Amino acid sequence: MTVLALTGGVGGAKLALGLAKLLPPGDVVFVVNTGDDFEHLGLHISPDVDTLTYTLAEVANPATGWGRQDETWRFMEALERFGGETWFRLGDADLALHLRRRTLMAEGLGLTATTELIAKSLGVRHPILPMSDDPVRTRVLTPDGPLAFQHYFVRDRCKPTAVGFEFDGAAAARPNPAIPFESLEAVVICPSNPYVSVDPILAVNGMREALAATGAPIVAVSPIVGGRAIKGPTAKMMRELGVPATTTEVARHYAGLASHFVVDEVDAEAAPDVGALGMSTTVAQTVMTSLDDRVQLAKTVVDLIR
Amino acid sequence: MTVLALTGGVGGAKLALGLAKLLPPGDVVFVVNTGDDFEHLGLHISPDVDTLTYTLAEVANPATGWGRQDETWRFMEALERFGGETWFRLGDADLALHLRRRTLMAEGLGLTATTELIAKSLGVRHPILPMSDDPVRTRVLTPDGPLAFQHYFVRDRCKPTAVGFEFDGAAAARPNPAIPFESLEAVVICPSNPYVSVDPILAVNGMREALAATGAPIVAVSPIVGGRAIKGPTAKMMRELGVPATTTEVARHYAGLASHFVVDEVDAEAAPDVGALGMSTTVAQTVMTSLDDRVQLAKTVVDLIR
Repeated sequence: MTVLALTGGVGGAKLALGLAKLLPPGDVVFVVNTGDDFEHLGLHISPDVDTLTYTLAEVANPATGWGRQDETWRFMEALERFGGETWFRLGDADLALHLRRRTLMAEGLGLTATTELIAKSLGVRHPILPMSDDPVRTRVLTPDGPLAFQHYFVRDRCKPTAVGFEFDGAAAARPNPAIPFESLEAVVICPSNPYVSVDPILAVNGMREALAATGAPIVAVSPIVGGRAIKGPTAKMMRELGVPATTTEVARHYAGLASHFVVDEVDAEAAPDVGALGMSTTVAQTVMTSLDDRVQLAKTVVDLIR
Repeated sequence: MTVLALTGGVGGAKLALGLAKLLPPGDVVFVVNTGDDFEHLGLHISPDVDTLTYTLAEVANPATGWGRQDETWRFMEALERFGGETWFRLGDADLALHLRRRTLMAEGLGLTATTELIAKSLGVRHPILPMSDDPVRTRVLTPDGPLAFQHYFVRDRCKPTAVGFEFDGAAAARPNPAIPFESLEAVVICPSNPYVSVDPILAVNGMREALAATGAPIVAVSPIVGGRAIKGPTAKMMRELGVPATTTEVARHYAGLASHFVVDEVDAEAAPDVGALGMSTTVAQTVMTSLDDRVQLAKTVVDLIR
């Protein structure tokens, strides 16, 4: 079987690691949001691709959710002295990935080929596929105008009010040609932010239709637990968009696409409402603190599929 | 008075520091070889400009002659793991300078303006002028063909035989317009490699003529002491070019341009030969081990001028 797991940042990467621990490389393929990507200091930064790469390589920083463990910051300190931009933190070792990516892309490789080489050199064996090799850039619409995603997310710390989202380039972007649509046994929508992690993937031209056309079950795992997001601005965005920050609303967001929905134990009472949206519902522990939690949730999802 | 000091790498930077300690910022201007510059990892590396900047900022690494003191190498270690090029060592803090330069140049600043901003942020008060804002690239001619300078110098550790030198772009390059030719009281040719540090400066279109036209005394300090170069491949190059590796031969190289020549104490017996080339000759300690040595040699040179 091939499971296609759609993932964005930290939460998605946690379940991805569980899936990678559970399934051999041939059985699971990760498709990653690149709407967060941006050019910075002349480098191509691909935050979600990097978070997944570092997570699967088991060199991710567990405290921050981004960057590498045991990181040092000499470059950043020196850059500050030179008057450079320091709002986006790049550690000394992390920077090597970005410079390496820059060199490879300047040699003509796409983001996919570059990601593969980098992941391989870190010992990652499971395929990590950027959603597209064509540029897609998420913009957060605010009352004061659109904000490039990293400006909203990192520089402005998610403080601006989100009234909507745009995925520049998505309509012209082609799904990553390496996605094995024809042999999919299931699709997993990892517990990532529905608006800025999963929606950009689905917005890639033809992606949503191609996923639906496979006929494979599509299992979404709720990123909202007890009315809150484990990490990140999902709940805040939902309130700003005028919808309740509940797991049921996340399910509604995926209605018509997902066939299965996994809610957390603390949201067990929402199961009937989710069921009413036309999805089979599973109650499980979705909060992943330990590695074992990650593997357990992956097991729940895989059992569901089978 | 304004002293114009032409300088390349480590040896030149030592005397430059002495001059900077002795003279206020308005009285000495440094003109730096950029023939060593190259593009690497998508960055503009300007080794001699950086060596002088770090030296005057007193953050240079005294052991290596390049890079910064108390440097760390996390970036380089990680880059190696990613399969990146590591023959040119870039420390974590040093890298910040290169990324900052890249950003500033991408914003449209030239190398001169960029150098000024970077030097200022490190507290350097004396003007550092790249010889030209136009690209000049030194190539070392070898029996196996031409080598880009850093490939010869760093990657191949000066092992190839040098049979000549080319300064690509020099004929089209304009001297840095900030060089105060009209108000020069003297020119100092620092004890840098005549072939690959000083000659590229003199090869910039019109530079040699403009220096000669000032009528100011031109004082050259020998980089060869007792038949050896303090650092670098000068003596090796001289042998390969078929000339004796002596201070007299360096003087001959500058004959017709320099009016004064400073030889080291150990080469005192060469003074008459140098004098016969039409230069007034001064014998001094030119080996600069301590900061005091640097200032003393600078004092010797300035006294000569006055």
